[in-house]
Amino acid sequence: MPAAYIGLVHYPIYNKHNEIVTTALTNFDIHDIARTARTYNIKQYFIIHPLENQAKLANDVINYWQDGYGGQHHPDRKEAFSILNLVKDIETAVKEIEKIEGKTPFIVTTDARIYPNTISYSDLRKKIATEDCPYLILFGTGWGIENQVMRNFDYILEPIYGPGDYNHLPVRAAVAIILDRLLSEKWWSE
Amino acid sequence: MPAAYIGLVHYPIYNKHNEIVTTALTNFDIHDIARTARTYNIKQYFIIHPLENQAKLANDVINYWQDGYGGQHHPDRKEAFSILNLVKDIETAVKEIEKIEGKTPFIVTTDARIYPNTISYSDLRKKIATEDCPYLILFGTGWGIENQVMRNFDYILEPIYGPGDYNHLPVRAAVAIILDRLLSEKWWSE
Repeated sequence: MPAAYIGLVHYPIYNKHNEIVTTALTNFDIHDIARTARTYNIKQYFIIHPLENQAKLANDVINYWQDGYGGQHHPDRKEAFSILNLVKDIETAVKEIEKIEGKTPFIVTTDARIYPNTISYSDLRKKIATEDCPYLILFGTGWGIENQVMRNFDYILEPIYGPGDYNHLPVRAAVAIILDRLLSEKWWSE
Repeated sequence: MPAAYIGLVHYPIYNKHNEIVTTALTNFDIHDIARTARTYNIKQYFIIHPLENQAKLANDVINYWQDGYGGQHHPDRKEAFSILNLVKDIETAVKEIEKIEGKTPFIVTTDARIYPNTISYSDLRKKIATEDCPYLILFGTGWGIENQVMRNFDYILEPIYGPGDYNHLPVRAAVAIILDRLLSEKWWSE
């Protein structure tokens, strides 16, 4: 079974004025992405955020669903939250994966631009299915992950194009589509 | 270009005790699904809800983004909201499509069970791309659309299976995955 991990990156992120900022954690990013990740057998969903007060906020939400009232009344939510892991930066996520897998993961993200290491969805799907190596798929918030950091990643996925010219998918939708393309049971027959 | 419409159904819906209820409209269902639908060139996104006070709530949200402060500062959100259409039931959505297209749409939904008219994603993808007929893809909230109503639909899509046994995708993620499977530019080469 492929060892796939995902991470939602809140720093270093561009805002709409191309400045580097830390974005806020949102409740829906925790909930929706945890459920989607659990559906596609993601081993851990790292919420990557440098600020301690935001980490505390996230922990309160997680504890409510893990140990409190929420978990008793919504066991499926509790199960989704069991894969959550709050870390302060990308390096810490990589180290956690190394501890679990005994191997350094390949790091993948998406970007609207084309890079020398840009890879297609079908090629990455094959790699994940056949190579005995963990993968960490990172998703940016705001206007995307800072360029210097992106240069250290192993693969950049092609952007998701709809049939038209509008391209402002919520990150929650992008995660769902990308995990389906990379990890679904094959649904197409052509 | 295929004429595809979607609708989010809030009545008649099962709750977890198998009772028929009207579900509440949620702000995130309006926002996330509008942006995903606009990305995949959906002609209209019908929010199907029978209660007038909920319709008023939705209209306030929509107007903020269409005409108010929100639309000026987030033009991409304004554009996504331009495809929203609030209607009181499925029949009204069908009539609106008939007015626009001059044809009755095929109605499609998803369900965990298998029906005589269950269809695969690749077969429906081909139909939408090649037939000169509008399609209305309906998504249930809560624990799904009531059985008697489902019997009148033309096609039922197979459920989305992840590689594991957990199957509690948020409706917002299900919409993203299904529109990608049915309407994306082809991304697989096999």
